[in-house]
Amino acid sequence: MILVMNYKASENDINKAVKQLEEWGAKTTISKGEKKTVIGIIGDKKALLSKPLNTLSGVEEVLEVSAPYKLASKEFQEERSIVDVNGVKLGGSHKCIIAGPCSVDTEEYVMQTAIAVKKAGATMFRGGAFKPRTSPYTFQGLEEDGLKLLAQARAETGLPIVTELMSERDIDVVYKYTDVIQIGARNMQNFPLLKEIGKLDKPVILKNGIASTVKEHLMSAEYIMSEGLKDVILCLRGVRSYETAMRNVLDVNLVPYLQKLTHLPIIVDPSHAAGKREFVSSLGYVGMAAGADGLIVEVHPNPSCALSDGDQALLPKDFDYLMDKLSKLESWNQEEWYDMDTNK
Amino acid sequence: MILVMNYKASENDINKAVKQLEEWGAKTTISKGEKKTVIGIIGDKKALLSKPLNTLSGVEEVLEVSAPYKLASKEFQEERSIVDVNGVKLGGSHKCIIAGPCSVDTEEYVMQTAIAVKKAGATMFRGGAFKPRTSPYTFQGLEEDGLKLLAQARAETGLPIVTELMSERDIDVVYKYTDVIQIGARNMQNFPLLKEIGKLDKPVILKNGIASTVKEHLMSAEYIMSEGLKDVILCLRGVRSYETAMRNVLDVNLVPYLQKLTHLPIIVDPSHAAGKREFVSSLGYVGMAAGADGLIVEVHPNPSCALSDGDQALLPKDFDYLMDKLSKLESWNQEEWYDMDTNK
Amino acid sequence: MILVMNYKASENDINKAVKQLEEWGAKTTISKGEKKTVIGIIGDKKALLSKPLNTLSGVEEVLEVSAPYKLASKEFQEERSIVDVNGVKLGGSHKCIIAGPCSVDTEEYVMQTAIAVKKAGATMFRGGAFKPRTSPYTFQGLEEDGLKLLAQARAETGLPIVTELMSERDIDVVYKYTDVIQIGARNMQNFPLLKEIGKLDKPVILKNGIASTVKEHLMSAEYIMSEGLKDVILCLRGVRSYETAMRNVLDVNLVPYLQKLTHLPIIVDPSHAAGKREFVSSLGYVGMAAGADGLIVEVHPNPSCALSDGDQALLPKDFDYLMDKLSKLESWNQEEWYDMDTNK
Amino acid sequence: MILVMNYKASENDINKAVKQLEEWGAKTTISKGEKKTVIGIIGDKKALLSKPLNTLSGVEEVLEVSAPYKLASKEFQEERSIVDVNGVKLGGSHKCIIAGPCSVDTEEYVMQTAIAVKKAGATMFRGGAFKPRTSPYTFQGLEEDGLKLLAQARAETGLPIVTELMSERDIDVVYKYTDVIQIGARNMQNFPLLKEIGKLDKPVILKNGIASTVKEHLMSAEYIMSEGLKDVILCLRGVRSYETAMRNVLDVNLVPYLQKLTHLPIIVDPSHAAGKREFVSSLGYVGMAAGADGLIVEVHPNPSCALSDGDQALLPKDFDYLMDKLSKLESWNQEEWYDMDTNK
Repeated sequence: MILVMNYKASENDINKAVKQLEEWGAKTTISKGEKKTVIGIIGDKKALLSKPLNTLSGVEEVLEVSAPYKLASKEFQEERSIVDVNGVKLGGSHKCIIAGPCSVDTEEYVMQTAIAVKKAGATMFRGGAFKPRTSPYTFQGLEEDGLKLLAQARAETGLPIVTELMSERDIDVVYKYTDVIQIGARNMQNFPLLKEIGKLDKPVILKNGIASTVKEHLMSAEYIMSEGLKDVILCLRGVRSYETAMRNVLDVNLVPYLQKLTHLPIIVDPSHAAGKREFVSSLGYVGMAAGADGLIVEVHPNPSCALSDGDQALLPKDFDYLMDKLSKLESWNQEEWYDMDTNK
Repeated sequence: MILVMNYKASENDINKAVKQLEEWGAKTTISKGEKKTVIGIIGDKKALLSKPLNTLSGVEEVLEVSAPYKLASKEFQEERSIVDVNGVKLGGSHKCIIAGPCSVDTEEYVMQTAIAVKKAGATMFRGGAFKPRTSPYTFQGLEEDGLKLLAQARAETGLPIVTELMSERDIDVVYKYTDVIQIGARNMQNFPLLKEIGKLDKPVILKNGIASTVKEHLMSAEYIMSEGLKDVILCLRGVRSYETAMRNVLDVNLVPYLQKLTHLPIIVDPSHAAGKREFVSSLGYVGMAAGADGLIVEVHPNPSCALSDGDQALLPKDFDYLMDKLSKLESWNQEEWYDMDTNK
Repeated sequence: MILVMNYKASENDINKAVKQLEEWGAKTTISKGEKKTVIGIIGDKKALLSKPLNTLSGVEEVLEVSAPYKLASKEFQEERSIVDVNGVKLGGSHKCIIAGPCSVDTEEYVMQTAIAVKKAGATMFRGGAFKPRTSPYTFQGLEEDGLKLLAQARAETGLPIVTELMSERDIDVVYKYTDVIQIGARNMQNFPLLKEIGKLDKPVILKNGIASTVKEHLMSAEYIMSEGLKDVILCLRGVRSYETAMRNVLDVNLVPYLQKLTHLPIIVDPSHAAGKREFVSSLGYVGMAAGADGLIVEVHPNPSCALSDGDQALLPKDFDYLMDKLSKLESWNQEEWYDMDTNK
Repeated sequence: MILVMNYKASENDINKAVKQLEEWGAKTTISKGEKKTVIGIIGDKKALLSKPLNTLSGVEEVLEVSAPYKLASKEFQEERSIVDVNGVKLGGSHKCIIAGPCSVDTEEYVMQTAIAVKKAGATMFRGGAFKPRTSPYTFQGLEEDGLKLLAQARAETGLPIVTELMSERDIDVVYKYTDVIQIGARNMQNFPLLKEIGKLDKPVILKNGIASTVKEHLMSAEYIMSEGLKDVILCLRGVRSYETAMRNVLDVNLVPYLQKLTHLPIIVDPSHAAGKREFVSSLGYVGMAAGADGLIVEVHPNPSCALSDGDQALLPKDFDYLMDKLSKLESWNQEEWYDMDTNK
C-alpha cells in the first residue's frame, strides 16, 4: 500500500502519518520526490484494512499495490484448479458445458431438455427452482418441487445438476438436491450467504455482480474460500453499461485476464449476457474461443411457454448447432502465449 | 406495452403475434407505418410479465409504456407519503437529518456522537451493528451488542434509531431493537429479504443498488410494499461510474425526478456517495438544495479510531457547520415549479 | 416514432398534440389503452427530426421505432458491402489484417515492421503520422515526413496504407499519401470532418467513440455516406467502463449485432481496446472468432523505443503467433445461424 | 510515478528496469516490500510521458502520483482565476448566468430572448450558429448569419456573447463576432482545434466530453493553456451513464472537487445535462448551490418553433423563476469549509 502525500504536506504531517501507521502495526519506507512524498507500507497489511488512511493529515491518495484477495490468487496457488463434480471435471484442460432451462417448469419440458442437451454433449444440467425476479408480480420458481424435477433429470441422464441458491433459508433444501450451488449476480455481495456456503462441501458457481469489478468478483470468491471451501467456479455474465445492444456487456477478454490473477476455473454465461436468443450462440462461441473452461447456457424446447427468460433460451437445435461449432474450435490458450513469449 | 415488428415481418407474422398475445390474455391494436407495423397492447399487462415477447416471429423490439411498479407510483397515490417514526416525521414538508457512526464501536463513542448530533439538530440516530464489508478480513460488526448500544443512545437522547439489516437470519434481533430498518445497496435486490421485511411493521430505508436504475430502485420498493408495508423511504447513495473523483456518482437531480414518479419520501446519503470527508458536507448541502426530505450522514468524534469507513465520517464540528448551513438553505420545490408552470 | 401520453393527459392534450404533429407534416394513429394513450407517427419522419416532441402538453415519453440512419442500414442494402483497396478486399467473405506501428517513427523501424507483417500475412499496413495525444507535452507525430515513410513502406511491400486524419487542415496532405483514411475515436463525432471526408473518394475506417453507442457509430457512418462516399469500414475499439482490467471494454458480440443492422464491413482494434500487449493477441483472436471482417493491430519491433503506445504494441513474434492461430480458426458466421434458424 | 513490480520479478528485472528508467532520464528510489518491490520515480517526468513503462520486464502496474496537467492546477496557481469579458467577471466571487437559445433561428426570437434574459438578470447571452447534430439530416445552424444576429443582440442589450466553435475552418468568422468561444462536448478532445484556440486571445468555455473524466477535462484545458491562453472556463454538462432518467448524469459535487484541483472558473450547463425542460431549473439551482461560478442555460420564447433542442429550453417565465430562486440561495463555499476545518 502506498500513501501519496499532497504537495502541501509538511514534514510534520509526514512524521505524524508515519507514526500513526507504525502504531497501527505497519512498517514504512519514505521516498521524497521533488514535489510530493510517498510513504510505502511494507509487510502484512491486514492491520490496516479498516483504517481511515485518508484522514491522516496531508494524505492525498491511497494506492493499493497488493491484491486484497489471497486464497483465490495465483500467488497463493500457481497451478489451475480443477473442480470435480461426481466425476465431471471443470478447469485446467477440462471443458464443461452446462445447459438447461432458466426455470424448472414442467416435468415434460425438464426431461425433454435434459435428454436433448445430454445428447448434444452437455456435461451438466442446470435449472432454476428459486428465481430472483425484478418484479414481485412474476413467477418466483417451483422451489422444492423444482429441485425434485432436477433430481429426476439427473437420475435419468446421469448429468450432475446445478441450481441457484438465493437465500440462507433455503440452504438445507438446495443442498439436499443439488450437485453444484449457483450464486447469482444479485447475490455476489450477499456476504452472509457467501459465508454460509463456504462452510459447505459442494462446488459453487459464483456469477459476477450486476456491475461488479473483476477485483470484487475475486473478493467474493475469497469470502467463500475463507470459510474453507476450495471449489469455486467464477462465472462471467457481463455487466451493466449504457449500451443497450445486448442485455449486458461481456468482454470475453476478461477470461485471459482472470487467468493471470486466479487459479479458479472460469465459465461464461452467454444467455444472461446477450439476453436475446439470436445473440446467445455467438457469445458462447467467443467465450470458449477466449479460453473459458466452460459455458452455462439456457435451453428450452418451447421458449414461448417458458416461465422466465424465454427470450434468451436456445432451442435444442440451436444448442446442437453451437455444440457442433464448438467441437471444431481451438480455444485461445493464454499460458501457451506466455510460453511463446518467454521461450522466444 | 408496444411490439415493434421489423421491416421484414410478414402479414402472417403479425397475425400470429396478435393471436399469441390474445391467447396470453392481452388486447391489441395495430398501427401500420410505411415500413414497420406496431402492435399496441391494451389493458392489464400482468399476464404478459413473464412472456417471451421477443421470441414471436418478426418482433424487432418490445417497448415498455407503463411503469412496472404500482403501489410506489404517483398514479397509485398522488399525495406525498409521510413516514412517522415515534413522532419524528419524514416526507411531505417534514425534513429529517439522520446522523451517527458508520459502525457501532464503543459505548463512549456512540454516546458522545448521539449527544453531539442531537444537539446539532439531527432527528434520528444511525449506526451499523451488522456490516457488509467487501473483504472477509475486515471488521464485520458488533451484532447484538451493537444494537444494545444503539438502544442505549435512544434512551439517552430520545432519537429514534436506524440500523442496517443484512440477512434474513438477523430479522428478529434487528426488529427487536431498531425503529427503522435500513437495507443497504448490496441488498437492494435481495428479494427474499425484501419480502420478509414487507411483512413487518417498521419503516424501511431502502438504498439504491451499486449500479441500479431508478426503475429498479422503485421495483425493489414495490417488492416490500407488495407484502403490505407502506413506510418505505428511498435513499440515494450514488451509483458506480468510470469517474473516480467521488466514490460514487450521485446526481441529486434525481430527487425532483423521483418526486414525479413516486409518492415515497426520498433521502440522500452523502457519506457513501462522496466517500471522503472533505466532500461529504457539500454533497449533503446540494442534496437538501435539490429538495430531498432528509439526509443520512456518518459522524464520528474520532475517525482514526472508527472501525469502518472512517475516511468518510464527518467530525462533530463538520456536522455543526453543515446543520448551520442547512438552516439557511431554501430547498428547491419541484411541486411549486409545476404550479408556476401550469398557473402561468 | 411513438408518443406515449402520460396518464393525466386530457382529450384536449391528445387532440392538440395530434394537430401539432400534423402541422409538422406527420400522419398519426391513436391507440387508447386503459391508462395511457399512445400516438403512433406514420411515414416520413424527417420533418420531425428537430421538433421538440417532449414539449407537447401531456407527452410522457417519445420512443424511436425506426433507425435514424438509412444508407448504412440493412434495410437500405441487404447484401454485405465489400471495400476494395487497390485490389485488397475487405468485407463479405474477405478477411483483412491491417498491422503496423502506432506512430511512424524511424525509417528503419517502419520498413522492418512493414516487411515483418507482410511476411506474416498482413494485407494492409498502418501507421500514425498525426497523433491525438491526451497530453500536449507528448509526441504529436511526424506529420508529412511520417506519411512519406508510409508511402515508402507501400512501395517496398505493396501493402496499401492506412493512416489517421485528425483535422480538416490536413485533409489534402493525408489524401495525397494514404490509401485508407482512419478516423479515430475522438473524432467519431467531429461532424465537419466527417462531412469533408464524405466528399472524397478514399475508403474510411471509422472507429467508435470513447463511449459511443452502436447507434451513434452508425449515425457517424451515415454522416460520411450522406455526402456520397460508400466505402466506410466500422472499427470497434471498445468503450469506456468503470472496469479497469483492460483499457476499454470491447464486447465482440457487437460484431454479429452490427451485422444485423448494417451492411458495412466491421473490423476490430484489439490494441487500443486491451491497452497492454499481453492481452492484445487474445482479443484479436476472439474478435475474428466473432466474425469480424478484419483486425487493425499495432506491431513494433522495439516497443521500448516506440514514440507512442509502446505498451500495447505486439512484437513481430507475437504477430506471427497470432496469424498462425488465426489461420486455423473458424469464424462464427451469424448469417449461417440465421439460415439454420429459418430452414430449421 | 510509481512502478509496482509483480511478485515474481527477479533482482535482475528490478535492476534492468531501474537502468532503463535512468537512461530515459528519471531518478529512482526502491522500496522492497515482503512480496513486491516498488520503484518510485523522482523529479521531472516529462521525459517518461511517452515511454512504454508497462513493457519493462516484471512491471505489474504503473501508478500516477502527480497530476499530468500543470498550468491548470492549483499547484501552479493558488488563487482562483477571474475571467473578465468586456467588464463582466466570472470566477472568484463573481457569479455569471449565461442564457439564450440553443440555436440562433430568427431575428425576432433572438432579440426577444436577449431582452428577456437580460431583464431577468443574465450577464451574458448565448446562441449557436454552428450546431453539432448527431444526424446529418437535421438543422446544422445559420452560420455567419447567426453570428450577425448574436452581434445585433449584443448591440441591443450590451450582453457579451458566447457561441460554439466546431471547426478550425470557422475560427476566423467566429472570432470576428463572439466575445467568448464555446467548445462543445464532442470537441473536448479535438486537439488540433484546442491548440488553435489557445493561440487566440478570447476566453474559452470548455465543456467536458460525452464521457470524459475530470482529469481529461483538465488535460484539455491544459492543451489550450499550453499555447498561451489563460482564460479557460470549465463547463460541466454531465456524462453518459446507463441511467436514462436525465439525458446525462451530472454530479454537481464535482464543483468543490474541481475547486481543489484547479484555479479555473467552473460553470454548469443544466440544459444539456437534464435534457428535458422540467428538470433543467432544479439542476441549475443545485449547480449554483454547489458553488459553481455560473450557469449556461438555454431559453427560448417558443420552444415548439426552436430549430434544435426545444425539449430542453426554458421559457422566459421559467428563467425568471429560476433567477428569483437563485437570488435567495447561498452557495456552498468549499474554501470556507477548509477554513473551518483547519482553524477549528
